[in-house]
Amino acid sequence: MIVVHATFPIDPDERDRVIEHIEELEAKTRQEDGVIEYVASTDIDDPNVIRFTERYEDEQALGAHTQTDHFAEFERMLPDVLAGEPEVMRYDVENAEELEL
Amino acid sequence: MIVVHATFPIDPDERDRVIEHIEELEAKTRQEDGVIEYVASTDIDDPNVIRFTERYEDEQALGAHTQTDHFAEFERMLPDVLAGEPEVMRYDVENAEELEL
Repeated sequence: MIVVHATFPIDPDERDRVIEHIEELEAKTRQEDGVIEYVASTDIDDPNVIRFTERYEDEQALGAHTQTDHFAEFERMLPDVLAGEPEVMRYDVENAEELEL
Repeated sequence: MIVVHATFPIDPDERDRVIEHIEELEAKTRQEDGVIEYVASTDIDDPNVIRFTERYEDEQALGAHTQTDHFAEFERMLPDVLAGEPEVMRYDVENAEELEL
């Protein structure tokens, strides 16, 4: 399994447009083979920071995602809407476990 | 490194109180040894779903966090504010890498 955390600081004036775009991106990505989880959230301290939490079964699923039209479209939009440096981190997981609270 | 994803569906009437509590929880947790990242966000589709993205250097750091007063306080509050089942997943990471967009 591969976990990806992607964080995008967004220009407040572009936030609504970006959220709309991301809702489409989420819907299409969740149809892809090997995508376990693909959700976007906004930071509780700064609602203009958008955070993706993504999980993929394997390298192939992650690779296929980055080759999709909807991912390319999102990437093309970024230079016009970013308000800072994005960060995308990839974590190769050797063990996953649900924790009881 | 250990990544934790925790998701809490919150009663809309309790949302403001919970967010306030989480801001304190974040501030205190970020002071702890071995806590690399500890951020909370709200889902873009449902703002009453609160998502924690957490990273710990090791088992000891995660264990110490769960023994803190501020974590215990948050856990005590949950039964009164949840609107559904929480999910807490732990991922043991064998490799971490920043991805270029």
